[in-house]
Amino acid sequence: MGVEDRADALAADARDPLAAFRGRFAIPDDGPLYVDGNSLGRPPRQVREVAGALLDTWERELVGGWEEWIGLPLTVGDHLGASLLGARPGETVVCDSVSVNLFKLARAALTTRSGAILVDATEFPTDRWVLDGLDREVRPCSPEPAAVAAAAGAGPIALAVFSLVHYRSGARADLRAVTEAVHAAGGLVLWDLSHAVGSIAIDLAAAGADLAVGCTYKYLGGGPGAPGFLWVRGDLLDGLRSPIQGWFGAAEPFAMGPAYAPAAGVARFLAGTPPVVALALVRPGVDLLAEAGMAAVAAKGAALTQRAIDLHDAWLAPLGFTLATPRQPERRGAHVALAHPDAWRICRALIERRRVIPDFRRPDVVRFGFPALTTSHAEVHDAMAHLRDLVTTGEHHAVAATARRVT
Amino acid sequence: MGVEDRADALAADARDPLAAFRGRFAIPDDGPLYVDGNSLGRPPRQVREVAGALLDTWERELVGGWEEWIGLPLTVGDHLGASLLGARPGETVVCDSVSVNLFKLARAALTTRSGAILVDATEFPTDRWVLDGLDREVRPCSPEPAAVAAAAGAGPIALAVFSLVHYRSGARADLRAVTEAVHAAGGLVLWDLSHAVGSIAIDLAAAGADLAVGCTYKYLGGGPGAPGFLWVRGDLLDGLRSPIQGWFGAAEPFAMGPAYAPAAGVARFLAGTPPVVALALVRPGVDLLAEAGMAAVAAKGAALTQRAIDLHDAWLAPLGFTLATPRQPERRGAHVALAHPDAWRICRALIERRRVIPDFRRPDVVRFGFPALTTSHAEVHDAMAHLRDLVTTGEHHAVAATARRVT
Repeated sequence: MGVEDRADALAADARDPLAAFRGRFAIPDDGPLYVDGNSLGRPPRQVREVAGALLDTWERELVGGWEEWIGLPLTVGDHLGASLLGARPGETVVCDSVSVNLFKLARAALTTRSGAILVDATEFPTDRWVLDGLDREVRPCSPEPAAVAAAAGAGPIALAVFSLVHYRSGARADLRAVTEAVHAAGGLVLWDLSHAVGSIAIDLAAAGADLAVGCTYKYLGGGPGAPGFLWVRGDLLDGLRSPIQGWFGAAEPFAMGPAYAPAAGVARFLAGTPPVVALALVRPGVDLLAEAGMAAVAAKGAALTQRAIDLHDAWLAPLGFTLATPRQPERRGAHVALAHPDAWRICRALIERRRVIPDFRRPDVVRFGFPALTTSHAEVHDAMAHLRDLVTTGEHHAVAATARRVT
Repeated sequence: MGVEDRADALAADARDPLAAFRGRFAIPDDGPLYVDGNSLGRPPRQVREVAGALLDTWERELVGGWEEWIGLPLTVGDHLGASLLGARPGETVVCDSVSVNLFKLARAALTTRSGAILVDATEFPTDRWVLDGLDREVRPCSPEPAAVAAAAGAGPIALAVFSLVHYRSGARADLRAVTEAVHAAGGLVLWDLSHAVGSIAIDLAAAGADLAVGCTYKYLGGGPGAPGFLWVRGDLLDGLRSPIQGWFGAAEPFAMGPAYAPAAGVARFLAGTPPVVALALVRPGVDLLAEAGMAAVAAKGAALTQRAIDLHDAWLAPLGFTLATPRQPERRGAHVALAHPDAWRICRALIERRRVIPDFRRPDVVRFGFPALTTSHAEVHDAMAHLRDLVTTGEHHAVAATARRVT
């Protein structure tokens, strides 16, 4: 039985130790074949219960609910950090958006040293754009040790900002080697973990990383626009100050005193009142990943992407597709990018005619995300089979080439 | 029948044109006497339905839900702006926290002119602290035209940041006169509307104001930690740039292009992915205030605070209380501050022994908030009667003087 047989996928599902987790998510029987969980993860079933309990507390406890809510940024942060990042206690908080968190940490880092910012020219736009707004030279550099060393040759480095897993290609950087290269060049490194957290095993402490931000609405299933998180290595905290001196980052928010003094620890990177409802919804997805264990989650992600790659090679390469994702499992995350000149129309046709939901990424990529807890091997098989059949029959030629989705 | 008779309060409730709105909020029959709705507003009943519908969309539409969600910051913003602020379309967005919004607008304003920042020395801490972090002289100034003129005499003014209604005293500034005084001094004015929005009638356009931020979890009932809003007068938008160049503030977020260009209009002050769940919960409270009309809401707020002041004069002044809120209705918001040397213990005793929930504000204020749509005249009467009885009998002496609430 070869990978082209659907029975091979069903057999893999039958021996999948994580298969039962799918039932812990709200997945309608009549829903589409969803392979875009790396844009927006599916909701854990427990989310509805958590939301209901939160509304109960708001109704009945009113302002007294804050006794419980006030700890959420740090308790959810510590849970996320310990389970998914290799963080020590007191290094992670959930707050604001990824963009705002990136701004806060990058600004804080830049006040500690002069020199340029390194960032990948193909980095996700919000990262590049936030950094472009910081009045500092921004030097393009890919997240590879040799590239970092070469970029450092052109002048001092203050900060390097890299995605651990690239949003489009799915390429994974070498966390430890790149961190060491940035340190050797005299800079701090800030990792964007948006497409890495919950998809691969991460050990920030072991890698000696400095700073990180990431997203909770992709593999973590925190819901649309769920808050971001930020992480700071503990020994750096005392030397870093948030540029946004909001009251929740102060040592004594409720003393209403005259002068701002930053809170001890990572709480200093909070700004405004925590988004309680949104924060509470982050926990169920973290709970499920913690229960499954990131070693098992990462192994399944590698297996699912391997199946997609094998089927690409067997079925799609002959149809004009190119694999835009690295073939070595340790060099990729849990999504796969297939390049094709007609990618946009193919993506639209999959959605409109086949109820298969991937994502399009400019200029020419159809992106398939496979969160381990909600994706089966059969789904990967079926998505690739639909793609093969759709392009073989030319269904995508009926889609207008000009329209554009908003996301 | 005088104001000291409970029958007077009941009669006022009987002729209250807004009385029916109370039934549109989730208010448990066995709950406390809640007079802290200006810290955290009660939940509109519709919130539960909106939350459920949002979870349905997330479950069933998945990433496709963004077709609907992506417009929320601007549509909820425009609704809030038109109904509650006197804003024109395209001037208001709901996003981030008040602290982050204040940071963005203050930074943007400061890049357009040199000079000091004016801020009240008794301003809410997050405002003072955020401004203290902007590397600009911060000069204390109360929100009064003569004070602004005097402060401007000490050197050029770039920006004045004032609360329209003071968080502790409830004192209301003269929106138009202070705006004109700041303009005469060559500065821009940024109004913090956190305690004003939904409690008094506001017309930012008529006052010629420049910038504003505010809170949706107090009088608007958006829920704990609900997002903030920001407002920019339309003709200023082209000249202002957000310091946080996130993708949702870009002209073409999804083009993933090389260089950041700000969006047209107030959308340029968005940063990260909008907090969809939290945003959706803001709308029900705005709907209710819009339906009631701010003229009626403000009139009831004035009447409720007047009742509290009258009962203070009759019952509480003889017990050592001092009114810390202005007596002229047009000079106050919808909360009342009663100062007493034992304020903290009195506040605790009201909560623990009487199930009356006001708020304590350092150093010596018990603060009573009366959101018009959820507060009856009888509740104001009863809260003041409990306060009178509690201090008369000395119940508060049993409360330990050292403990401190977190909020």
